[in-house]
Amino acid sequence: MKFLVMNGVNLARTGRRERGVYGEETLDAIEEEIGAFVRAHGHEVDFFRSDLEGELCAKLGQTDGVYDGIVLNAGAYTHYSYAIRDAIAGIGVPVVEVHMSNVCAREEFRKKSVLTEVCRGEVLGFGKKSYLLALEGFWL
Amino acid sequence: MKFLVMNGVNLARTGRRERGVYGEETLDAIEEEIGAFVRAHGHEVDFFRSDLEGELCAKLGQTDGVYDGIVLNAGAYTHYSYAIRDAIAGIGVPVVEVHMSNVCAREEFRKKSVLTEVCRGEVLGFGKKSYLLALEGFWL
Amino acid sequence: MKFLVMNGVNLARTGRRERGVYGEETLDAIEEEIGAFVRAHGHEVDFFRSDLEGELCAKLGQTDGVYDGIVLNAGAYTHYSYAIRDAIAGIGVPVVEVHMSNVCAREEFRKKSVLTEVCRGEVLGFGKKSYLLALEGFWL
Amino acid sequence: MKFLVMNGVNLARTGRRERGVYGEETLDAIEEEIGAFVRAHGHEVDFFRSDLEGELCAKLGQTDGVYDGIVLNAGAYTHYSYAIRDAIAGIGVPVVEVHMSNVCAREEFRKKSVLTEVCRGEVLGFGKKSYLLALEGFWL
Amino acid sequence: MKFLVMNGVNLARTGRRERGVYGEETLDAIEEEIGAFVRAHGHEVDFFRSDLEGELCAKLGQTDGVYDGIVLNAGAYTHYSYAIRDAIAGIGVPVVEVHMSNVCAREEFRKKSVLTEVCRGEVLGFGKKSYLLALEGFWL
Amino acid sequence: MKFLVMNGVNLARTGRRERGVYGEETLDAIEEEIGAFVRAHGHEVDFFRSDLEGELCAKLGQTDGVYDGIVLNAGAYTHYSYAIRDAIAGIGVPVVEVHMSNVCAREEFRKKSVLTEVCRGEVLGFGKKSYLLALEGFWL
Amino acid sequence: MKFLVMNGVNLARTGRRERGVYGEETLDAIEEEIGAFVRAHGHEVDFFRSDLEGELCAKLGQTDGVYDGIVLNAGAYTHYSYAIRDAIAGIGVPVVEVHMSNVCAREEFRKKSVLTEVCRGEVLGFGKKSYLLALEGFWL
Amino acid sequence: MKFLVMNGVNLARTGRRERGVYGEETLDAIEEEIGAFVRAHGHEVDFFRSDLEGELCAKLGQTDGVYDGIVLNAGAYTHYSYAIRDAIAGIGVPVVEVHMSNVCAREEFRKKSVLTEVCRGEVLGFGKKSYLLALEGFWL
Amino acid sequence: MKFLVMNGVNLARTGRRERGVYGEETLDAIEEEIGAFVRAHGHEVDFFRSDLEGELCAKLGQTDGVYDGIVLNAGAYTHYSYAIRDAIAGIGVPVVEVHMSNVCAREEFRKKSVLTEVCRGEVLGFGKKSYLLALEGFWL
Amino acid sequence: MKFLVMNGVNLARTGRRERGVYGEETLDAIEEEIGAFVRAHGHEVDFFRSDLEGELCAKLGQTDGVYDGIVLNAGAYTHYSYAIRDAIAGIGVPVVEVHMSNVCAREEFRKKSVLTEVCRGEVLGFGKKSYLLALEGFWL
Amino acid sequence: MKFLVMNGVNLARTGRRERGVYGEETLDAIEEEIGAFVRAHGHEVDFFRSDLEGELCAKLGQTDGVYDGIVLNAGAYTHYSYAIRDAIAGIGVPVVEVHMSNVCAREEFRKKSVLTEVCRGEVLGFGKKSYLLALEGFWL
Amino acid sequence: MKFLVMNGVNLARTGRRERGVYGEETLDAIEEEIGAFVRAHGHEVDFFRSDLEGELCAKLGQTDGVYDGIVLNAGAYTHYSYAIRDAIAGIGVPVVEVHMSNVCAREEFRKKSVLTEVCRGEVLGFGKKSYLLALEGFWL
Repeated sequence: MKFLVMNGVNLARTGRRERGVYGEETLDAIEEEIGAFVRAHGHEVDFFRSDLEGELCAKLGQTDGVYDGIVLNAGAYTHYSYAIRDAIAGIGVPVVEVHMSNVCAREEFRKKSVLTEVCRGEVLGFGKKSYLLALEGFWL
Repeated sequence: MKFLVMNGVNLARTGRRERGVYGEETLDAIEEEIGAFVRAHGHEVDFFRSDLEGELCAKLGQTDGVYDGIVLNAGAYTHYSYAIRDAIAGIGVPVVEVHMSNVCAREEFRKKSVLTEVCRGEVLGFGKKSYLLALEGFWL
Repeated sequence: MKFLVMNGVNLARTGRRERGVYGEETLDAIEEEIGAFVRAHGHEVDFFRSDLEGELCAKLGQTDGVYDGIVLNAGAYTHYSYAIRDAIAGIGVPVVEVHMSNVCAREEFRKKSVLTEVCRGEVLGFGKKSYLLALEGFWL
Repeated sequence: MKFLVMNGVNLARTGRRERGVYGEETLDAIEEEIGAFVRAHGHEVDFFRSDLEGELCAKLGQTDGVYDGIVLNAGAYTHYSYAIRDAIAGIGVPVVEVHMSNVCAREEFRKKSVLTEVCRGEVLGFGKKSYLLALEGFWL
Repeated sequence: MKFLVMNGVNLARTGRRERGVYGEETLDAIEEEIGAFVRAHGHEVDFFRSDLEGELCAKLGQTDGVYDGIVLNAGAYTHYSYAIRDAIAGIGVPVVEVHMSNVCAREEFRKKSVLTEVCRGEVLGFGKKSYLLALEGFWL
Repeated sequence: MKFLVMNGVNLARTGRRERGVYGEETLDAIEEEIGAFVRAHGHEVDFFRSDLEGELCAKLGQTDGVYDGIVLNAGAYTHYSYAIRDAIAGIGVPVVEVHMSNVCAREEFRKKSVLTEVCRGEVLGFGKKSYLLALEGFWL
Repeated sequence: MKFLVMNGVNLARTGRRERGVYGEETLDAIEEEIGAFVRAHGHEVDFFRSDLEGELCAKLGQTDGVYDGIVLNAGAYTHYSYAIRDAIAGIGVPVVEVHMSNVCAREEFRKKSVLTEVCRGEVLGFGKKSYLLALEGFWL
Repeated sequence: MKFLVMNGVNLARTGRRERGVYGEETLDAIEEEIGAFVRAHGHEVDFFRSDLEGELCAKLGQTDGVYDGIVLNAGAYTHYSYAIRDAIAGIGVPVVEVHMSNVCAREEFRKKSVLTEVCRGEVLGFGKKSYLLALEGFWL
Repeated sequence: MKFLVMNGVNLARTGRRERGVYGEETLDAIEEEIGAFVRAHGHEVDFFRSDLEGELCAKLGQTDGVYDGIVLNAGAYTHYSYAIRDAIAGIGVPVVEVHMSNVCAREEFRKKSVLTEVCRGEVLGFGKKSYLLALEGFWL
Repeated sequence: MKFLVMNGVNLARTGRRERGVYGEETLDAIEEEIGAFVRAHGHEVDFFRSDLEGELCAKLGQTDGVYDGIVLNAGAYTHYSYAIRDAIAGIGVPVVEVHMSNVCAREEFRKKSVLTEVCRGEVLGFGKKSYLLALEGFWL
Repeated sequence: MKFLVMNGVNLARTGRRERGVYGEETLDAIEEEIGAFVRAHGHEVDFFRSDLEGELCAKLGQTDGVYDGIVLNAGAYTHYSYAIRDAIAGIGVPVVEVHMSNVCAREEFRKKSVLTEVCRGEVLGFGKKSYLLALEGFWL
Repeated sequence: MKFLVMNGVNLARTGRRERGVYGEETLDAIEEEIGAFVRAHGHEVDFFRSDLEGELCAKLGQTDGVYDGIVLNAGAYTHYSYAIRDAIAGIGVPVVEVHMSNVCAREEFRKKSVLTEVCRGEVLGFGKKSYLLALEGFWL
């Protein structure tokens, strides 16, 4: 199986911003660990990062027939991007929403995700391991 | 008269996503039909597509003195982009909001448009014909 | 094809009330223009006017098998008449909602229509031309 | 005892509209069945139908001293007619609210009745039998 | 000066319904007293009563050039009839809203009037004298 | 046919608490009357009482294939027990919600039932007769 | 009869502030006119002005047995002073709320009065004549 | 490490109720599979089931020093049980919330969990595999 | 006089959970201190603890004629248990609500108690002394 | 220890206003009883009364280092005075909020206190004894 | 130019209360610094302090023709005083709202100012320098 | 010190759009004036403009260690971009929010800023001088 791991707005700066919340590891390091994990289970994985809402939509729109599953951390767009929601709803590839922190235990506005409803499932609160668990959900 | 037909986020993938809602025709085909219709009535039309909210704003900001009217389908941005709203309010060219589906008969969040208030009018629910009717509204 | 154009509460006084919003043409004149337009396209049209919510419901209830389409301007009933909504939902004839003004750009209560959800589509903001565009949507 | 069974807006078209919800029997047939049921129990019953909110109010206002109980299906007026509510509150005859369908299992706006508070009771969800049960409540 | 005193839904039954709230005098008696009061001050007055929202709208629509002022007790329509509101806004004759009881001291839904905003003023809580004070407001 | 009549929290103390609202008859007496009524119509009935939300859920979960219908007065759980709602939705036996008092005419929080939506119907306001009418709804 | 006319916050500056709304007459002039009107009808009147919420409460608390009626324009305190509300509810003298402008036709927050519920009635929208009509309500 | 897997209200009937949502496997079968999975990874697991909110709280209160982690599917209590929330907050053992279905894609009331805020994380939408992923989150 | 001190959900674990909020004393120790205090004032006291909402209701239902007053700390049920509220309203024994912590200074949901309205009074924020003050309120 | 008992708006008129709610004793008599109670326990107490929100704030601002505790009945200011709230938050002396009546069992607006959050605790519903219990909370 | 710097409720105690938020400097010291700053730029400044909402309104009402600009820190009145709002709207002198702390980063209720809408501008978050920047805004 | 002045969506068109609100000066001219002002005070300043939400986030993410302060006018993104909010919260450089117009005195949606809470302060309503005052806040 072939997967796509997508990281949205501000996540490229993980490891440099709000370390109390997100830890000190960079996104490069996290992606490397994800890659090793996926390959160790005999699958393939691509990565995509963008701060731009529209680019995330465009990328999602190009995944049909290419990937067997998508793991998406949309960052703050999670809470208001009906555009990304529409992009997810418009494709046949199952998408799993992930968050490294327990977003529900933070500010009020983070308790609402406009994406979950059109995703297959959600994993949150396990730090970088959220990505691994979400991926494993596809083949377990 | 010269018109601009703008299509926002996810619309470039019309015909490929959610065919139950949007039909199977691609945006290329729809634009071609719009072009033929406008020219048949003796007018000109340009097209603009972007998934990026900011690019839609920038394009709107360059229309004064160039177009006699704009027909805009902003996609999901319709429901929360105060940026596009400001861009519309900031120009002198009249804008008509269109939607192919009857957005009010779908999810709750689609019932609210933050754009209509600053548009000249709105046409929704006629499929690709929504564009034609909106354009005809300028010269009828 | 045969159409019915229905005008609800207060609309019979168009041309005499709030001319800044609705123009100075009377409903008689507007209906005449609509009639000419429809016949010019080779179709038939009937007109119905009532200030009474219940009469509008009753009329809607008698349209199955008689008309191919209905264009309805329900006036202020648009914003709260679940009775008219039920009447529309109860028939097989497609109904298009029209408004002469851009109701979304006026008072807050006008932003909510309880009818759109059960209509086929909506045209608003084109003055008397809203009727023409809505009708054209049936045969374009 | 003598009863009045009142049917409000759109109900005269029962059996012809939304058959999935209301069944295929006409209101004439239902009233006939109600009449037989009431007379079989040794009571009398009158029927009143109107699409007009104000006529329903006027009729309610003429029931004191004439009827021992009223069974009212106000149709969509149930959800917003404070006028009918006032009419019920203004008389001494007990009123029982009925609905053929389980209105709470349909659209959100149908979950709120402005009438129940001033009625004696409510029966909903039993199809045409809702009328029979409501009437029986008066003599059981 | 010539005035019109309008009474809306359920008010024709004043004196017979909810006497604890509205007193035991009939609307006939109250209108007689109003008539005497107005004539005693050298003015003329007509009366109009209807339970039908649409008839109240139609009557309002025929007052321009006929009356110098209107005193309106719309009954329960006060709380939701945007149709009557539009009818008031559509004429040039000033309208004063009256209520016999202190509607704000009753149920929650009575605290909201959708009419006041388009009326010249409001008088409430003085029983039948609310009509007299409202009328006097025109010539005092 | 075989029925189950279920009474939830605080109802075992009927006849001893809030007699102004619920009357002076005990639940034992009411059940006896229900039993006689059901048997008189040639059917069978079992009774179940519990103050515990979870026990009500468990009992509901054991009814498939045992009963032809359930009449449920959940007491105050009516207003917030999504657990009982799920238990009802999870079985094939039709459930009718009953209330002895007109719950809508009491405190604001009693106007909302989270159960009705998954029930077949509802009977309220007829005192102990609410149970009889609800049962009769199954065989009338 | 003896009356008290109370004016609350900012009203002492009437005639100098927001003349478009309140006219150019000073409160001194208005009180003089009120005094003449009351005496002409054979009654007495005292005046009280304060910008301080607590002083208005204290004054209200000293009126039992002294006045037959109070006319109160509380200014902006109308919209949030539960303290003044309590002071009105705590006395036996009937209070009539007045406003010179039609407060409901201005900003949203002015549509809510926390006082009306404990007043006898309300007069609004007649400019300085609002005071005269409110007073006349006591002896008409 | 030693874990506790807790299942709340109605879940003991999994496989028998709402099979479209929860599948046809019984909770016994699911627990067996979970047990095998945990032991295969060299850990221990206990199971606890209860329909009673208070029993779930009591059990949670006895876990300190006994378990290294808890996986909790509270069923419908998820949406309103502040009691379970308090029980989770009151212990030192980390709790992970799981749901077999994507609760956010179902009824509106299921979008709110009062538990997540005090849990370590959440896994939802993977069917019975949600339990496995949640457990794996403790040792991955 | 004879009193009942009731402790609801999670309170049996006081002294072991959230010590920062509730202190380190166990409920046993607190009850002992309460017992000594009550007896020192010449009265009697019984204690009741349960994690189960329904058991708390049942116990409340058995107090008429047995106790002169009840002091109730319902724990988290305070915020949503309309069942306990009904149980309190259904008895003649006065109930005083107590909380050890200042619940209003904690999470938002703790600011609402559905019980206070039917209690005689409330004492909160004095730690274990809240119980003593509440009891003293019966004989002071 | 030395205490300050503060009474806010309208409370100086206790015993004269709303006797059904507050009893017939005057504030003088109540303060005398409080004084005797405090001195009997070997402590000192001062009293402060004001109808003015700002004076209550100013007095609170002068208590640091003077008093060991404050008992505050702010009257209606309880429900909206963020100024008093700030004054309480700005001092080091612990403040206990008291109400003689059970404010939660009265009008809706009385259910919200903006002060409790910054107070140490609250006592309500014990009539004049609320003051005594609140004071005793400081030395018990 | 001549300016007025106004400080509202609780601000006279700055430097003594909530030093973590407001610093340790007294209002006297801050006013001295403001005075020096203004005079250094060749302008004049007066100061006014009051804890009383009504006195702030009265002072505002005396500024027309006296000052060229006002800088107002209304303290907690900022969040609910429609009286001060009216006082600002009623004068011709431009008012700038200031706050020393970033009120939006504190409690929820501080995010709403009822004053900003009628002020010329706002400066917040710069500590005592907020006053200086606001003043400089008049002459920069 | 070195500063960054950032301008978000639609602001590059300042001077050309909505001149009534924003004046006729272009952003080029305003930046030039800002540059002169900063340099005159002995500091440095860079400028950044983008219509794209994601580019603004990315730029903010590159400012740590480069700038001593940022002045940000996010345009309409101010009201909903939690992405920009996260970007601000993720850096150590203090950000001051500015608006040229008094956004609170315009449409309702402009009254809410999702950014202020994570900014150091805010300056609004001084036209182009808002930028100057905000910058001066860093060195005054």
